[in-house]
Amino acid sequence: MNKDGLKKTWQEILSFPMGTRCEKPRTKGLTMVIDKGLGLGETRDLLNLAGDYIDFFKLGFGTSALYYNHVLEEKINLVTSHGVEIYPGGTFLEVAILQDKLREYLAMARDFGFTAIEVSDGTMDLNPKIRAEAVTRAVEMGFTVLTEVGKKDPHDDFEIKDIVKLVSDDLSNGASYVIVEGRESGKGVGLYDNQGNIILSDLEELVHSVTDPSKLIWEAPIKDQQQELIIRFGPDVSIVNINPHEVLALEALRVGLRADTLKSVLRRYK
Amino acid sequence: MNKDGLKKTWQEILSFPMGTRCEKPRTKGLTMVIDKGLGLGETRDLLNLAGDYIDFFKLGFGTSALYYNHVLEEKINLVTSHGVEIYPGGTFLEVAILQDKLREYLAMARDFGFTAIEVSDGTMDLNPKIRAEAVTRAVEMGFTVLTEVGKKDPHDDFEIKDIVKLVSDDLSNGASYVIVEGRESGKGVGLYDNQGNIILSDLEELVHSVTDPSKLIWEAPIKDQQQELIIRFGPDVSIVNINPHEVLALEALRVGLRADTLKSVLRRYK
Amino acid sequence: MNKDGLKKTWQEILSFPMGTRCEKPRTKGLTMVIDKGLGLGETRDLLNLAGDYIDFFKLGFGTSALYYNHVLEEKINLVTSHGVEIYPGGTFLEVAILQDKLREYLAMARDFGFTAIEVSDGTMDLNPKIRAEAVTRAVEMGFTVLTEVGKKDPHDDFEIKDIVKLVSDDLSNGASYVIVEGRESGKGVGLYDNQGNIILSDLEELVHSVTDPSKLIWEAPIKDQQQELIIRFGPDVSIVNINPHEVLALEALRVGLRADTLKSVLRRYK
Repeated sequence: MNKDGLKKTWQEILSFPMGTRCEKPRTKGLTMVIDKGLGLGETRDLLNLAGDYIDFFKLGFGTSALYYNHVLEEKINLVTSHGVEIYPGGTFLEVAILQDKLREYLAMARDFGFTAIEVSDGTMDLNPKIRAEAVTRAVEMGFTVLTEVGKKDPHDDFEIKDIVKLVSDDLSNGASYVIVEGRESGKGVGLYDNQGNIILSDLEELVHSVTDPSKLIWEAPIKDQQQELIIRFGPDVSIVNINPHEVLALEALRVGLRADTLKSVLRRYK
Repeated sequence: MNKDGLKKTWQEILSFPMGTRCEKPRTKGLTMVIDKGLGLGETRDLLNLAGDYIDFFKLGFGTSALYYNHVLEEKINLVTSHGVEIYPGGTFLEVAILQDKLREYLAMARDFGFTAIEVSDGTMDLNPKIRAEAVTRAVEMGFTVLTEVGKKDPHDDFEIKDIVKLVSDDLSNGASYVIVEGRESGKGVGLYDNQGNIILSDLEELVHSVTDPSKLIWEAPIKDQQQELIIRFGPDVSIVNINPHEVLALEALRVGLRADTLKSVLRRYK
Repeated sequence: MNKDGLKKTWQEILSFPMGTRCEKPRTKGLTMVIDKGLGLGETRDLLNLAGDYIDFFKLGFGTSALYYNHVLEEKINLVTSHGVEIYPGGTFLEVAILQDKLREYLAMARDFGFTAIEVSDGTMDLNPKIRAEAVTRAVEMGFTVLTEVGKKDPHDDFEIKDIVKLVSDDLSNGASYVIVEGRESGKGVGLYDNQGNIILSDLEELVHSVTDPSKLIWEAPIKDQQQELIIRFGPDVSIVNINPHEVLALEALRVGLRADTLKSVLRRYK
C-alpha cells in the first residue's frame, strides 16, 4: 500500500519487457474478437475483465441472423458501452449482396446498432464495382469499414500484387482497415501454410508494397502466429479472430508477460 | 423499423441459401450438445442465446455423478424448461450395468428429472439381451431412448452389417434414435479415420442399408465433419457432441450463413 | 428418495471403478486449473459447479498484471473462499527477478491475497542462488511454494539427473510441490514429444530417482496425457494446466467414469 492507502499496481513496480502499449481508443495494435455465440452474461463478464484490451467484436459468419432480436440489441449495447466497436461477419454481407439487398442489409445493421461493417469476398467473387459501392455506401452511413483480402478457399490463387491493388482501392474508398484473411482456423489460407505457419516471404512482400502497413490487420487465431507477428511488428500489431478466452493471454504476449515473447526480448538484449 | 415500430428480422429481408430449417420440437435436424462441465450461469446464458437451436443436452461421460445434488437438479430444470431434452452420458449407464444396477440407475435418473437415456456399449461388450432390456425398460419408464453403435476404441473391429442389425434391433425395441459413434475427439473411431475425415464408403453403405436413415444421428465434433454431413444430407441432418460454444456456428453452417456451406451452395447453383 | 425424503446420491448406489479419491484439502491427486482470462461470473460459476475438484488456480503467464485491481481482488477472494489456492503464473516472477524486484513482487502478491507462488525458470536461466532465495523468501512470507523444472523451449537440453537434483534442492528449501514442465500446449517440451506423447523412459527414470514422487505435479493439458498418467499412477496423481472447462471431465477420468479409464480398469479385472 502507498501512503494514501491505495494499492499500487504492478506497473508501478515493474516495466514489462516489450515496452509500452498504446491505449484505447487505438488506431494500431487492435485486438478483435471473433464471437461464435457468447451469451449476454459471458459477454458482460469478458468486457468487465478485459474491455480495455478489446477494440472490435465480430459476430462470426452470419450468426447475427440467428439471435433473438432483444438479445442482439442488448448485446450490441453492452459491447458499445465498453468503447468496443461491433460488426456482423463478412459472410452475412456476401449473402445480402448475392440477393441484391445491400441497401436493406446496411439499414438493418444500423438499426440494430452495429457500428462497423466488414466487406469481404471470402466466399464468392465480388465484382470490383460492387465492392467499391459497398465500401462507399457503408462509409457514408457512418460505419467504420473493414475490408478483407484473400480467399477463404486455399485452392483459389491470388497474387500479392492483386492484393496490394485491392488494399489501395479499399482505403481510397474510405475503408479504415484491411484484414488479411486467415479464417478462424488459420491453416492453409491466405499467408498461412497447411500447418498454420506464416509464409514469411509473402508477408514481407505485402508489407513492403502497401503504402501504410499500419492499416493492415492480421487474422491470426493460432498462438504461434500471434507470437510471430508480435516479434516481427512489435506489440502494436493489429490482430483479429481472437477467441474471447484468449484476449488476456494475447495481451500478455504483446507486452512480454508470456514466456514466448519474453524469451525473444531476452535474446535481443543479450 | 416497419410502420408498427417493430424491428424487422433479417429473415424478412434475406432468405438463407440452404433453405428452410424445421423448427422445434424437431424429429430431424437435431443438434445435441455435449456438456463437459458448464456452470449454471453459463447454461442459462447459452439457452437464452441459442435455446431454439438445441434439442438435446448430454452431461458427458459420467460427470452427472460429480455434481452437487442441488446443482444437478437446477441444471436439469433449467434445460428442460427451454424445451431441451437432457440425459447422462452413456459411460455412466455402462458403469451401472457392470455393477448390475440398471434398475436403480434408471430410477435415480428419473428422480433427478432426466428425460432421456443413452444406451451404449462404447467401452465394454454389452450382451444383446441386456442391451435390449435396458432399451425396453427405459422406454417403459417414459424416457426418450438413444442408443449408440460403434466402439470407442479404434482397434475394435466392427462390420457395417453388424451395425445395420443393431440399428434395426434398437429401433424395434423402442429407441427413438441411434447415434453413430465419433467420440468427443472425432478421430480414429467409427466412421472417421485418424485425421478425422469421414470414411465415405462406410457412411454410404450404412445409410443405404438402414430402413429409415433419418433415425441416425452423427457424432461429429469437428467442423469439417459437420460441414461434410450438411453438404451430403442437407441442413436437417442430426448431429451430436457439439461444443456448447459452437451451437450458433453450427446453425449458421446448416443454413448457409457460413462460408463453407455458402460456397457449396454457390457451386451447386452455378 | 430415501425414507427421510432426501435424494440418494449416485455414490450410494454405484461404486466407481477406479476406487476412492481423497477429498479436499488434499496433498495428492491435486487438480490445478490454468486460467487464461476467466471473468468473475465464469469463475463463480465454475467454483459452484466443481469447487470440490479444484485445488489450485493459476492466473496464467503474467495475466495478473492486466487485471483491474478491484477485479483481481474480487477474483482472489472468490477463489480462496472455496478453499482453492491461487497464484500468479511463473513467467511473471521471472519478469520481476529480471528487474531485481523479487521482494516487491512477493509483497504485492501478498497484498492482493495470493496464497501461493510459482518459482520457475521456464524462460531464462535462473542462477541457483537466486532460485533458492526466491523459494526461501516466499516460504517465509507464508506462501505455499511450487517450483517448476524443465525448460519451456524444446531446444534447451536438460538431463534427468539435473532435474532430480533441482527437485531435491527445491523441496529442501521449503517448496511444497515441484511441477514437471509441459506448458499449456503439452507438445515438444519436458517429458512430451512433438506429438504430445509422454516419453515413458524419462518419466520412469524421474519417478524412480526422486525421494518422494508424490511431490511431483505433472503439466498435462492434453486428455491422452492425463489418461496415461492416471493409468500409470492411479486416480490420485497431481495434474496442472487443466482448462477450466475440463475439470469435471478430468475428475470423471480419474474415478473411471469415462470410457478411457473405464476400459483400462476392465482390462485389469479380466
